[in-house]
Amino acid sequence: MSAFPRPALGPDAGCAAFPLGGIGTGTVSVGARGDLRDWELMNRPAKGTRLPFTFFAIRCARPGREAVTKVLEGPLTGPHEGDQGYDAGRLAGLPRLASSRMRGEYPLLRIDLADPEVAVDVTLTAFTPLVPLDPDASGVPGAVLRYTVHNPNPEPVDVTIAGSLANQVGITGWNVFHFPEYAGSPRNTWFEEPAVRGVEFANDLDPSDLRHGTVVLATTDPSTSAKPQWLSGFWQDGVQVFWDDLRSDGRLEPETVFSLDEPPYPSWFTRLRVGSLAISHCLAPGESRDFTFLLTWHFPNRPRAWQGNIGLDNTNAGEVVRNHYATRFADAVAVARHLALAGPALEERTRAFHGALFGSSLPAEVVDAVSATLVALRSNTCFRLADGRFAAWEGTFDHSGSCEGTCTHVWNYAQAAAYLFPSLERDARHTEFTRETRPDGRMNFRANSVFGNPAWDFHPAVDGQLGAIVRLHREWRFSGDDELLRDCWPGVRRALEFAFTEWDSDDDGVLDSKQHNTYDIEFFGPNSLANSMFLAALHAGAAMADQLGEPAVAQRWRAAAARGRDRVDALLFNGEYYDQRLDDVDARRYQYGTGCLSDQVFGQLLAHLAGLGYVLPRDHVRSAVAAVHRHNFRADLSDHHSVQRTYALPGEAGLVLCSWPRGGRPRIPFVYSDEVWTGIEYQVASHLVYEGLVDEGLEVVRAARSRHDGYRRNPWNEAECGNHYARSLASWGVLVALTGADYHAPTGELSFTPRLGAPLRAPFTTGTGWGVLRVSDDDAEVELLGGELALNRLRVAHPRLGPLATGPVRLAPGEPLTLTASHHDRLEVHR
Amino acid sequence: MSAFPRPALGPDAGCAAFPLGGIGTGTVSVGARGDLRDWELMNRPAKGTRLPFTFFAIRCARPGREAVTKVLEGPLTGPHEGDQGYDAGRLAGLPRLASSRMRGEYPLLRIDLADPEVAVDVTLTAFTPLVPLDPDASGVPGAVLRYTVHNPNPEPVDVTIAGSLANQVGITGWNVFHFPEYAGSPRNTWFEEPAVRGVEFANDLDPSDLRHGTVVLATTDPSTSAKPQWLSGFWQDGVQVFWDDLRSDGRLEPETVFSLDEPPYPSWFTRLRVGSLAISHCLAPGESRDFTFLLTWHFPNRPRAWQGNIGLDNTNAGEVVRNHYATRFADAVAVARHLALAGPALEERTRAFHGALFGSSLPAEVVDAVSATLVALRSNTCFRLADGRFAAWEGTFDHSGSCEGTCTHVWNYAQAAAYLFPSLERDARHTEFTRETRPDGRMNFRANSVFGNPAWDFHPAVDGQLGAIVRLHREWRFSGDDELLRDCWPGVRRALEFAFTEWDSDDDGVLDSKQHNTYDIEFFGPNSLANSMFLAALHAGAAMADQLGEPAVAQRWRAAAARGRDRVDALLFNGEYYDQRLDDVDARRYQYGTGCLSDQVFGQLLAHLAGLGYVLPRDHVRSAVAAVHRHNFRADLSDHHSVQRTYALPGEAGLVLCSWPRGGRPRIPFVYSDEVWTGIEYQVASHLVYEGLVDEGLEVVRAARSRHDGYRRNPWNEAECGNHYARSLASWGVLVALTGADYHAPTGELSFTPRLGAPLRAPFTTGTGWGVLRVSDDDAEVELLGGELALNRLRVAHPRLGPLATGPVRLAPGEPLTLTASHHDRLEVHR
Repeated sequence: MSAFPRPALGPDAGCAAFPLGGIGTGTVSVGARGDLRDWELMNRPAKGTRLPFTFFAIRCARPGREAVTKVLEGPLTGPHEGDQGYDAGRLAGLPRLASSRMRGEYPLLRIDLADPEVAVDVTLTAFTPLVPLDPDASGVPGAVLRYTVHNPNPEPVDVTIAGSLANQVGITGWNVFHFPEYAGSPRNTWFEEPAVRGVEFANDLDPSDLRHGTVVLATTDPSTSAKPQWLSGFWQDGVQVFWDDLRSDGRLEPETVFSLDEPPYPSWFTRLRVGSLAISHCLAPGESRDFTFLLTWHFPNRPRAWQGNIGLDNTNAGEVVRNHYATRFADAVAVARHLALAGPALEERTRAFHGALFGSSLPAEVVDAVSATLVALRSNTCFRLADGRFAAWEGTFDHSGSCEGTCTHVWNYAQAAAYLFPSLERDARHTEFTRETRPDGRMNFRANSVFGNPAWDFHPAVDGQLGAIVRLHREWRFSGDDELLRDCWPGVRRALEFAFTEWDSDDDGVLDSKQHNTYDIEFFGPNSLANSMFLAALHAGAAMADQLGEPAVAQRWRAAAARGRDRVDALLFNGEYYDQRLDDVDARRYQYGTGCLSDQVFGQLLAHLAGLGYVLPRDHVRSAVAAVHRHNFRADLSDHHSVQRTYALPGEAGLVLCSWPRGGRPRIPFVYSDEVWTGIEYQVASHLVYEGLVDEGLEVVRAARSRHDGYRRNPWNEAECGNHYARSLASWGVLVALTGADYHAPTGELSFTPRLGAPLRAPFTTGTGWGVLRVSDDDAEVELLGGELALNRLRVAHPRLGPLATGPVRLAPGEPLTLTASHHDRLEVHR
Repeated sequence: MSAFPRPALGPDAGCAAFPLGGIGTGTVSVGARGDLRDWELMNRPAKGTRLPFTFFAIRCARPGREAVTKVLEGPLTGPHEGDQGYDAGRLAGLPRLASSRMRGEYPLLRIDLADPEVAVDVTLTAFTPLVPLDPDASGVPGAVLRYTVHNPNPEPVDVTIAGSLANQVGITGWNVFHFPEYAGSPRNTWFEEPAVRGVEFANDLDPSDLRHGTVVLATTDPSTSAKPQWLSGFWQDGVQVFWDDLRSDGRLEPETVFSLDEPPYPSWFTRLRVGSLAISHCLAPGESRDFTFLLTWHFPNRPRAWQGNIGLDNTNAGEVVRNHYATRFADAVAVARHLALAGPALEERTRAFHGALFGSSLPAEVVDAVSATLVALRSNTCFRLADGRFAAWEGTFDHSGSCEGTCTHVWNYAQAAAYLFPSLERDARHTEFTRETRPDGRMNFRANSVFGNPAWDFHPAVDGQLGAIVRLHREWRFSGDDELLRDCWPGVRRALEFAFTEWDSDDDGVLDSKQHNTYDIEFFGPNSLANSMFLAALHAGAAMADQLGEPAVAQRWRAAAARGRDRVDALLFNGEYYDQRLDDVDARRYQYGTGCLSDQVFGQLLAHLAGLGYVLPRDHVRSAVAAVHRHNFRADLSDHHSVQRTYALPGEAGLVLCSWPRGGRPRIPFVYSDEVWTGIEYQVASHLVYEGLVDEGLEVVRAARSRHDGYRRNPWNEAECGNHYARSLASWGVLVALTGADYHAPTGELSFTPRLGAPLRAPFTTGTGWGVLRVSDDDAEVELLGGELALNRLRVAHPRLGPLATGPVRLAPGEPLTLTASHHDRLEVHR
């Protein structure tokens, strides 16, 4: 098991891949050795993709010594297999630096590179801007790659860092020699503007072509030389000449001919076009200097259809829709210009967010979990269309989206977008309630309307549909967006009433009929997953009804919630936890019966996060959550027999989805019951914290993150049914639970109920501003780091001083607000 | 670097994959953990293929204790990534044994499996029969997998070992969930015969379908139980029920229903059919017992065309040809029956061969090299057609053949088939000279005639074409097959005369025009690769002319050889080694000029192996070969800058194809010049041994084999342009060189000139029998282990006693012949 904070990863951390890229832009990742991998820029995943001849190199020359030129990566550590060894494009036969140490603190990556023969120390810093509450600032299709070079020698060193990139625009596939094949004719062009210069990689494909796009490798540094297009040829002429050119004097020369072969070129003649950009500086003794590269891209077009594996109608698949970012940038050069001009400010804001997280006093495993899983938001799992729609897969398979339609029962668990980029979640709710809820109240749990395609016809998902109501309440509460609420309200009423008619067969206020759910099967009979969600939805619905002036509705739903609470508790609480009541657990497959389900009171967690309080008896909830930890968390899974998918192995720790501590395991329990999902681990961890079982919650988080250690799994990719799985975004709930942050925009109230002692330092967000909460023994301080925030009431439950409060106040960045004993709150602390 | 003999490989030797399968049958491999992987049975490579739910499991029950059931594999060691974790078919969530230790001594595999909870010790022995000189006995499409279980406890143990296998017949591809998709309807059937019983995996595809075939998991053991077909379903019902059934009592029950789902089954309903066969025995305290499984297969059909990437015409691709093995066996049941009945005898002969190699006194790295590379002969690289033709790819890409047509310039290097299965090489020569040599003498260096498809039209390959002449001489000499010689003779004459007209532009007896060669480019001007091959071919041609009573031809070619030798030596020997003479090495790309080429006297090596003696001055040859080792062998490639394909990395040792110790490296030297190929390493190592530089030769062999350590690369797969690359079969030449074995069938003479001191124990082969040579301080002994051998003269150059000889003798297995000082040879020792 890794310790936390996570140790630096060596070059043999072969699973580590730190993605660069913004929300809805796709990503390219940096491996532990500083290598570029997993080129996923073209609106679809492409794990494992390596572009040939795409790498950075360094040349260092000291007076009177032979210059040293190496690939600016840590060593290849193996395995070294391949059906043709390493193909030439991998350049495995060139020297690399002796060591690399990767420290990824999403969204900032740092890799230290060192080598006894290379006379300088090099640190790579790489990031794509990430600014809370601002999906545009966080949605730049590009990244900064900054090599900071230090000359520790008593003599000057002439240093060149050269970046080389294969043109990837128009790639259609890979031939048996592991080289790309293209549609259209790729071409590389040098461009130069006052603020930025570099190589643009384009193609003559029609602008409406799905593969149309541009990529840029550029710099703001004026001290450049370049070989915008290497020699082309069937054999390796281009790379040989490039490497010899770089080695000779550290300055690149443009090629004067296209190829050493004679035209006309045969049809099989390679269309691979590689270009290089070099930055050179002579570093004085002791000097440090940045060599900054900008890597940007622009692939505007995606098919107007999911084309996923669930089989939603893809009626408009022949049409093209544009990415949101394409409405902001004309091409990759425009993105590079943006990064050149706005980059410093974006970096400052990104670093503020990074500092708020990684400078916090939160347990390191929590910082690790909440930061690393944010990648899911910026992976191909999520996208934004030109018309403003936000939509997402459940996750991404290696080469295609996984399951489509912003699936309600998966996104049910996600908290990160709601708290960091709440406008995205608001848009998802808008889609769900205004476009995907049928007249009879059945919600299509996979949205096909984002592409204007026909609605999907399938069972309704009890957890997703009812959870969407709770989440709409969360979104409305966080934003105070009454228009959203009004737009969605008719759908909310239908969707919630649907539960009474569809899922409560005997009208006793307890859902008990065929209940499709996130385990991709149907539960039958009373169970607390569905019913805790139902109770939470009733409370959320009632609160929204209040806001919209529908007291009769509010009253009816509250009454149903009260009745349901008692009935569910009486029916399903077994003295230790809530279970499923069935006469014969084997009468139908895929039930759990007497099992201890990790999600058994998931609805209660959503209620906590949405400020709805307890929907089931507090002591029973606490007992249930404790039982989940007691029975389902395994410090070592060696005795666990699972024939299902496997995310945690014998020897590893993890929380299983269900166990049968009292016997009664069905012959064939629900699929996934023996699996370990990080999304559910975070759900349970969040809930453990809410119930005061902080150590238990942290233990679960540590298990999940220890499995993702860079050697066994990628720290920046928690997979379930697909990489970068949306459910993993549940992790942000742990942070919310630990600070007890609760923001209620409609009333302008912000409160904190920290579940960690002082001193505490932790980030928080609201709908309009975000910042840091600091609690010392003697006071509490709230500082805004971005946006603005007008509060009627600010409350902090201080661990020693008791409830503190003030307000009204208007917070702005740079103006921290301190609450001391003099702010003792004479009102009851919120919740 | 690994030591030799190779240490046992742990479960983390992720590259180790030991192939089972015969010549021309395809293979399935066993990984270091005892797992079955790389299912390549269907007449095409399929590296990385894993069949779901395909594994062995063990259940052990001791009186009064809870039974233990585990997957009978070593632990999964990671990485554990996957876009869906491990899919269910991998069963990564089941317990495995704590440790595994793999010892692969091709063709015998042994894996020791141990676990503190499992009460018994288990050793897996797996092999496919391999009998020298007998490609049929060595061409069984199947394997024996024998688990030997030992009960070290003071109490009896009830042991079940169950093998499970997914039906792979008709698989067309893999869906995004990593499950197979099928053509036709796969079906599993129990069969039982007196000698053998088990599960047959078939499909209702038409027998002429390319995918048609059968697979069998069977046993000779009558103590079985089985679940021939697991429950089918969309979810994991089948595996859950199977695992629970096995765990419950260690005896499998056939399923009484097809599926727990209700018919009619939807179109997407899985067609995956898994079946299991269990063997159960109660082992008394201290008892050991074998649990023997037979895995056999039968995929008779392949397309009547190469369909390779070089682009030979595939005119008959729509037709089907049958494998040779399909003429011997009707289906996989017939193969299982054969293995059940003939298996013990085949195993005895296989073990005799294994013992001759692994019980030899040859350096361990040589045994490792010559045994491990034999896999290339039994991989999909090679195949045999129903009409008797032998044909081969250069190697195999992961999912298709690499370059097609039994390429003459690649197979030029291979020695293993010539010495172990000489009938295969004779057939290849027959094809080359009777079907692929044009009227003008140009040989198509890729044979398309094996499929009756049109001849390939391309440059002739100077090394391959002339090497084929030397190799025909080798084949004839080893077999005494005069009919082959007569059939080929017209082609030989044309092919050799072609050299004078095509490649010798100025008629001076030195080849100097455009010379296409194994580096896939053309050399220009005089060079010793082409010319050493030319000289060897002239000698070989003359010898064959003698045999055929064409003294004038023989005399002319000998004269040309004598003239050429002097001229080449004068022109190309630079005092240290032979180079290429060009006025301007950069006038054309891809030359080597003053470089030290590893293949510079490759023709001389072939001459040595074919008993033709020196074709260039002995002292210069020796100097040249020493220079190759001196300049091209690198104990550490860290300072080597190669932009080409990479088979040996910085930090590893290897022999590069060329170097320029005297300067003069061309701006763009021939492609591959900076690469490291095992085939050329073995070629050079063999030659170093012939020239008496034994330690240097062994150093090169150690380098190659140390790189294939199971962790970085697969010990049983030396790749170049494809896996299991034919050039790696050069390794057998090292063994021949070390023993100095020379067999001349036409005169019935066998001689040995050992280049290692006594005591020596090493295998040898002749055209009709094979055995072991033993040399002690006081005598020499030759023992036949297979076949028969009638000799006019047997000679051994004894290291202390000097030349010994006897004859005529008739050798037979079990009747060793000893030569002592009394056999002192009054004649001169051969060569």
